Amino acid sequence: MHIAIIGCGQLARMLALAGIPMGFKFSFIADQGKASDISCVDGLGDVVYWQSGLNVESLFGSRGKPDIITVEKEQIDSSLLIALDAHYFLHPNIDAVEQTKSRLKERLLLNKLNIPVAEYSLGKGIAAAAKQLGYPLVLKSLEEGYDGKNQWLIKSEDQLQSLLSEEKLDENTILCEKWIDFDRELSLIAVRSRKGKVSFYPLTENSHHNGILYRSIAPATDITPELETKAQSYLTRIMCNLDYVGVMAMECFATADDLIVNELAPRVHNSGHWTQLGANTCQFENHIRAISGLQIGSTASRGISGMVNLLGTASPPMDAIGETSSLYWYNKEPKPGRKLGHVNFVEDSRERLELHMQDFEREAFNRM
Amino acid sequence: MHIAIIGCGQLARMLALAGIPMGFKFSFIADQGKASDISCVDGLGDVVYWQSGLNVESLFGSRGKPDIITVEKEQIDSSLLIALDAHYFLHPNIDAVEQTKSRLKERLLLNKLNIPVAEYSLGKGIAAAAKQLGYPLVLKSLEEGYDGKNQWLIKSEDQLQSLLSEEKLDENTILCEKWIDFDRELSLIAVRSRKGKVSFYPLTENSHHNGILYRSIAPATDITPELETKAQSYLTRIMCNLDYVGVMAMECFATADDLIVNELAPRVHNSGHWTQLGANTCQFENHIRAISGLQIGSTASRGISGMVNLLGTASPPMDAIGETSSLYWYNKEPKPGRKLGHVNFVEDSRERLELHMQDFEREAFNRM
Repeated sequence: MHIAIIGCGQLARMLALAGIPMGFKFSFIADQGKASDISCVDGLGDVVYWQSGLNVESLFGSRGKPDIITVEKEQIDSSLLIALDAHYFLHPNIDAVEQTKSRLKERLLLNKLNIPVAEYSLGKGIAAAAKQLGYPLVLKSLEEGYDGKNQWLIKSEDQLQSLLSEEKLDENTILCEKWIDFDRELSLIAVRSRKGKVSFYPLTENSHHNGILYRSIAPATDITPELETKAQSYLTRIMCNLDYVGVMAMECFATADDLIVNELAPRVHNSGHWTQLGANTCQFENHIRAISGLQIGSTASRGISGMVNLLGTASPPMDAIGETSSLYWYNKEPKPGRKLGHVNFVEDSRERLELHMQDFEREAFNRM
Repeated sequence: MHIAIIGCGQLARMLALAGIPMGFKFSFIADQGKASDISCVDGLGDVVYWQSGLNVESLFGSRGKPDIITVEKEQIDSSLLIALDAHYFLHPNIDAVEQTKSRLKERLLLNKLNIPVAEYSLGKGIAAAAKQLGYPLVLKSLEEGYDGKNQWLIKSEDQLQSLLSEEKLDENTILCEKWIDFDRELSLIAVRSRKGKVSFYPLTENSHHNGILYRSIAPATDITPELETKAQSYLTRIMCNLDYVGVMAMECFATADDLIVNELAPRVHNSGHWTQLGANTCQFENHIRAISGLQIGSTASRGISGMVNLLGTASPPMDAIGETSSLYWYNKEPKPGRKLGHVNFVEDSRERLELHMQDFEREAFNRM
């Protein structure tokens, strides 16, 4: 089995590392135009470079036609997706990637499926949106938004004016959203097999710093069966509607009395990294299994797990490796704030987990 | 961290696959003389070729000096071990490898440490040994014996005569052993850190076909705390005596009233493959952690695990991949009887495990 992954980042790396033990071969598709850092996937397969107008049938050269193509990101040039789709099997399919790539298409899909999202406005101008939705107001670019990039939280009319004078925003490509006063952010990771069987990991609780995921805890505590069922029914509806194959992530805001979907990712997700140590089968192996037509592995969790991202940490914190914790280091070029690795923790109680994670965070802080 | 492994087989492959997620780099040392199949480790690091007389200081060329050298086998040319030991850190150390490489040195070590072994005879001639030990008699070559090779079970004087007329045996290099009428074969896998902390996986029960390990089950059932303690005390004694660092395996015969040590392996072991799915940290990751001076991961098992070797199976049995089972395929050149992969199973009861493994074995039989 030869799987090609669009992208060369840490998600591609960890997908390959989950598939190689089964004897699978990997290729990675990079953009010719962009100066991609391919150190993450070095040695795990060939990197092939795509550029507009290239004959995609011959993209893989002597390596031969891949059996399946998958993605590690949704921000992919549509012309590449269309060209690949004409010659290869894409899982998830092109529709699923295109609809989750654009915040507008994603909102329209969620609306169509009667899944609650934050109230939003698009195309009427930001000033009109502010009038309609009030403050705080969240502005998001329609594409290329991740890790808090191209996203602004505006608390007042004054702030809005100063943003508009500083940044050249094309108001037609900005989605304006009412701020959700949420209790916490939860994400749900599911995997759907080629035969349509959906399996869920337990809901995960996420914390962010400056829009970047900083830590996750799973299973999230104080989750009622009703809330878990509601989240699972939303994601099932989405995956079935898209005839989705593979792992998908759904980020939600949990408010006092509801669950509001914030974002979908047609791929393995940072908030599912804990599954590498804390679940019977990790999200990466299950994505590979699903797209290859294999049976899905048990998604049951063991104990209570935590994950902390290593953001901008120049060298791997080897002392994070302990009896109940593991280090994952991506071998990327270090840059401030960049995701360079993560640490997984697993304990038998939330209290022990908190102590262990806080110990680590204190150590990390002392090293800075 | 750059780790070089002596050997290019499936154990080297799985060691590398356990270390790469932590950001480690690997090299593999192959024998120039032997036509090594290096397909197992293809892409996981550079393969360097050693031959007698080569300058080992420059063995790794532009890849640079490795931080640590380890082994995936004990049958290693002593001149290579000595040359490497002069320039690099070897874990386990050269003494540990040399003493477990020769059945005689191993017997002498076990005798010295008061660890029971089968009654044996060496150097007095096979006929005299047969007289002393009686039949059945087991003949084993001093080196190069594994997977039932260079080993003979002799049940009578007639069989002995026909063996001696068929095979040209150098009687000085044959260890003669009294046959042990054992109930079952157990193995113990332990890992010792650089600081001297020893952790154990639970005892594993092994079944062989024609001298080759066929299946393992762990934790072995009906193990008294006394038996577990006895096994652990033997292996602790051995590892401490050798100042051993890394994973070591001890194969034993369990008789009605005792535990007799049959063989030691200074490395990760086939009977520990189940730890990839059935333990909190697998033997491969723990070996890498130990030799790198890192903390050992939890060796606790989850549920009850099984492992079946895929011997000579020409193509990977993808249908072995299930909700509670995983496939490991080594990408080696298929040959009859060769270890080409394995399947791990984990269930919550021995009964369910037996049913699952028997289902798989029946399928495998039908495919043959």
